[in-house]
Amino acid sequence: MDGVNLVSRKYKEENTIVNVNGVLIGTDKLVIMAGPCAVESREQLLDSAHIMKELGADIMRGGAFKPRTSPYSFQGLAEAGLKILAEARELTGMPIVTEVMDTKDLDLVSYYSDILQIGSRNMQNFALLREAGKRGKPVLLKRGLAATLEEWLNAAEYIVSEGTDQVILCERGIRTFETYTRNTLDLSAVPAIKALTHLPVIVDPSHATGRWELVNPLAKGALAVGADGLLIEVHPNPDKALCDGQQSLSPANFHKLMQELKPLASAMGKII
Amino acid sequence: MDGVNLVSRKYKEENTIVNVNGVLIGTDKLVIMAGPCAVESREQLLDSAHIMKELGADIMRGGAFKPRTSPYSFQGLAEAGLKILAEARELTGMPIVTEVMDTKDLDLVSYYSDILQIGSRNMQNFALLREAGKRGKPVLLKRGLAATLEEWLNAAEYIVSEGTDQVILCERGIRTFETYTRNTLDLSAVPAIKALTHLPVIVDPSHATGRWELVNPLAKGALAVGADGLLIEVHPNPDKALCDGQQSLSPANFHKLMQELKPLASAMGKII
Amino acid sequence: MDGVNLVSRKYKEENTIVNVNGVLIGTDKLVIMAGPCAVESREQLLDSAHIMKELGADIMRGGAFKPRTSPYSFQGLAEAGLKILAEARELTGMPIVTEVMDTKDLDLVSYYSDILQIGSRNMQNFALLREAGKRGKPVLLKRGLAATLEEWLNAAEYIVSEGTDQVILCERGIRTFETYTRNTLDLSAVPAIKALTHLPVIVDPSHATGRWELVNPLAKGALAVGADGLLIEVHPNPDKALCDGQQSLSPANFHKLMQELKPLASAMGKII
Amino acid sequence: MDGVNLVSRKYKEENTIVNVNGVLIGTDKLVIMAGPCAVESREQLLDSAHIMKELGADIMRGGAFKPRTSPYSFQGLAEAGLKILAEARELTGMPIVTEVMDTKDLDLVSYYSDILQIGSRNMQNFALLREAGKRGKPVLLKRGLAATLEEWLNAAEYIVSEGTDQVILCERGIRTFETYTRNTLDLSAVPAIKALTHLPVIVDPSHATGRWELVNPLAKGALAVGADGLLIEVHPNPDKALCDGQQSLSPANFHKLMQELKPLASAMGKII
Repeated sequence: MDGVNLVSRKYKEENTIVNVNGVLIGTDKLVIMAGPCAVESREQLLDSAHIMKELGADIMRGGAFKPRTSPYSFQGLAEAGLKILAEARELTGMPIVTEVMDTKDLDLVSYYSDILQIGSRNMQNFALLREAGKRGKPVLLKRGLAATLEEWLNAAEYIVSEGTDQVILCERGIRTFETYTRNTLDLSAVPAIKALTHLPVIVDPSHATGRWELVNPLAKGALAVGADGLLIEVHPNPDKALCDGQQSLSPANFHKLMQELKPLASAMGKII
Repeated sequence: MDGVNLVSRKYKEENTIVNVNGVLIGTDKLVIMAGPCAVESREQLLDSAHIMKELGADIMRGGAFKPRTSPYSFQGLAEAGLKILAEARELTGMPIVTEVMDTKDLDLVSYYSDILQIGSRNMQNFALLREAGKRGKPVLLKRGLAATLEEWLNAAEYIVSEGTDQVILCERGIRTFETYTRNTLDLSAVPAIKALTHLPVIVDPSHATGRWELVNPLAKGALAVGADGLLIEVHPNPDKALCDGQQSLSPANFHKLMQELKPLASAMGKII
Repeated sequence: MDGVNLVSRKYKEENTIVNVNGVLIGTDKLVIMAGPCAVESREQLLDSAHIMKELGADIMRGGAFKPRTSPYSFQGLAEAGLKILAEARELTGMPIVTEVMDTKDLDLVSYYSDILQIGSRNMQNFALLREAGKRGKPVLLKRGLAATLEEWLNAAEYIVSEGTDQVILCERGIRTFETYTRNTLDLSAVPAIKALTHLPVIVDPSHATGRWELVNPLAKGALAVGADGLLIEVHPNPDKALCDGQQSLSPANFHKLMQELKPLASAMGKII
Repeated sequence: MDGVNLVSRKYKEENTIVNVNGVLIGTDKLVIMAGPCAVESREQLLDSAHIMKELGADIMRGGAFKPRTSPYSFQGLAEAGLKILAEARELTGMPIVTEVMDTKDLDLVSYYSDILQIGSRNMQNFALLREAGKRGKPVLLKRGLAATLEEWLNAAEYIVSEGTDQVILCERGIRTFETYTRNTLDLSAVPAIKALTHLPVIVDPSHATGRWELVNPLAKGALAVGADGLLIEVHPNPDKALCDGQQSLSPANFHKLMQELKPLASAMGKII
């Protein structure tokens, strides 16, 4: 890893703290980003937002532009979805995070969202990385499905080299031969990457495992290995979700997780 | 694999032939696309073009926009490179293929190039796929580093669903644990994908192996498993190449390959 | 997964507890197996044993037969090593665990060791699995480098089908494309396998990461996802270890880990 | 790769030729080993042998000891199977190759078989490698499912260091994320390994792909990349095979393959 890279721990030793409308990522506080995979309707999202708020989430997630393997799957509500997300922010006070998939949508997503999420399929969409880096907004950069730590950091470097250091890395599982889980969550990446970079790192156990019943233990594992936050899929009614219902927690299970994380966070010297 | 997908063999049984300014891909002719990794200068590219033409290449390749892991590596000459490629086409009559990395560059690249190449890092850049499909130009879609055959075909479906069937698939190696080669060329993907889709498939042994000395045997292997064409990196002076010199054939080695492919092609009932 | 398999949770719902000379694995106690990669000398091993005992390990590990990639690497002290391990057990009272690599060594290793360890390279050495199952001793079965959960459970079934249920599974990292760590520790395997089987599962963060500085956070992660124990490489002087010094904790770092695990274990409702 | 290893091209430049009862492997002759996955009965095996002989195979294959994922799957006929193989050799004059899975079976298998096959699951069963190297019989060493070229060569070194150079390497597919094929045949391994070692290399497209319809094109690919031989599963009646019927050629398809390989071999300067 080249010592002169801006994202490198060698370049800057102290942790970078990302400030999302006052929610700080990279401190002793474990930051919880939660919400449904996709914005499906105004009702579904606002319901979700109230639940997330009540159960202790810090940031609301929800997809308006959805990267789907097939062109015939539900692709998201686009701007209509962004407007609903903004409404949820107003009602709850929680900042929002949502994915942007193309440079031409950056103005639009930047207008509504507090964090620009770049998904794993776009981790090496270099034009998108550069343009996102110019917006002055925090960027959440998911690790690519087959990206090495070095490639991931170089992708972050594309963003940071445009003038911002407000980048959050997100481990979300890598592709391996194992098929029981959707991907293989690489929790060693968390302490490894924190040794290499000053940027904060969060973990998404929902996409990594693809199984809601594994989200609880792996969220705890993520906390224990030193993650700065969690990105969790929660749906008011997982069985009726338009996408990824299989990996979404119900509100009750999310509540249970939040309760169980507390003593663990305390044991780790963190708050939640 | 869903039988109703437009790219499926179930939807259309006969092979699709892609027509690139009169060069047909998907027939008994093994189509050779060759040239340097990147357009480095007018002299280098035009030299290359004359050599490629003389040695029997059908289509000239060369990158004007280069997807590089680090933002500080050479990123290509952009439009200046495209103009040089167009000049090479005029001088030699060979169509050109070059990569487009972002929707905002599509007009520009479409203006100059005969084939729109979408690289492995962008195989699931869905906006790019859709927009490329609207240009009415052949698209060369490289397989993603960690893409299954099903995901690759779905990516092609994004293009074809916009109204064109002029898509060429390109196997270029997948990421595995083996580090001796840059990637692992998956030659079983060629007959497998040809059973699943009517689209033509070519093979890029240069990027797959990352070693010029393996390009010759794997080019032969690609022909033997039924590939419709080859994408080969050739550089007038590999030792001085700005990128990927390690995997580029010298003109002498490219000449040797072309000579050795002929009897093999003939044995396979193909021409070259 | 076939419901009739003896290792299946469907066959037997309650957790199996493995009894190693009175040390129980599969209860609320997090069992710590620790020690050097290899038995190098009487002095090194007995020193290690005293340190392990003092710092709170439950079971002493050390290799007498070492599976090495090259035939010219140190292969272990064989029976002489086993005798030293037995001496360590007498001096400290800790049971010992050591690897057996071939059916012809089973009598010998069974005579000295309290647990028969079967390494990842031998996970599908079916003759060894069967014969080990006949000895009436607990067996520690490491997951193969490229084994799916299903294959791992079937390997355990080979042992259990010979009449014993005293099998401990050990996740030790799988082979992926990532090279920063030696292997990729698959912590999702822990809750996943515990849902599928009644056998206890422990985690070896030392071999998985190949880096001592990652052992501490991943040991915590293993506890947090629900592991029943840990297998940790500790060496009195890692810089002088004959094998795997890079991934071995010093006594000071092992002490630090043990101290830091305590509040976490308590938060998880476990003891250590 | 260490230059002093006995298997290294640096140690010995010229190709090693393995002599199996007069059948030479490592010359211009493409050696065909063919037969069913398992010896199922005397009738099935002798029928197969006559068909193999008639259709041009050089060496007869058939498993008497079968490594099966589950202990409850058909495990082979053991010595009864070896006797049937020996009878097939007498009737046809073809040497036989069959797998040995444990050191305790080495005397038995050596007594009957002309080649000792070590399967991919046992590639790092070091005791087996050493003992097999002492028998003075050719050894066929399959690449492990997740073995690097370096590990594979080191496994061969275990055999050769016991005093024999009669080792045949066999590429049979590696484990990757792709599930369409059973494994991913790594044809680049053939020229790569031939650059690193003087030992002959053959390819098994049947186990690699797990699909009989891909065996034909990949057998051709193996020839084109420079393999010294092929290991092909052929069954008199694939639909009724006790194992691996899905990947076995019928006699008619094997005949077709042999006919189609001829012009290709000729174009490669080889005979068949």
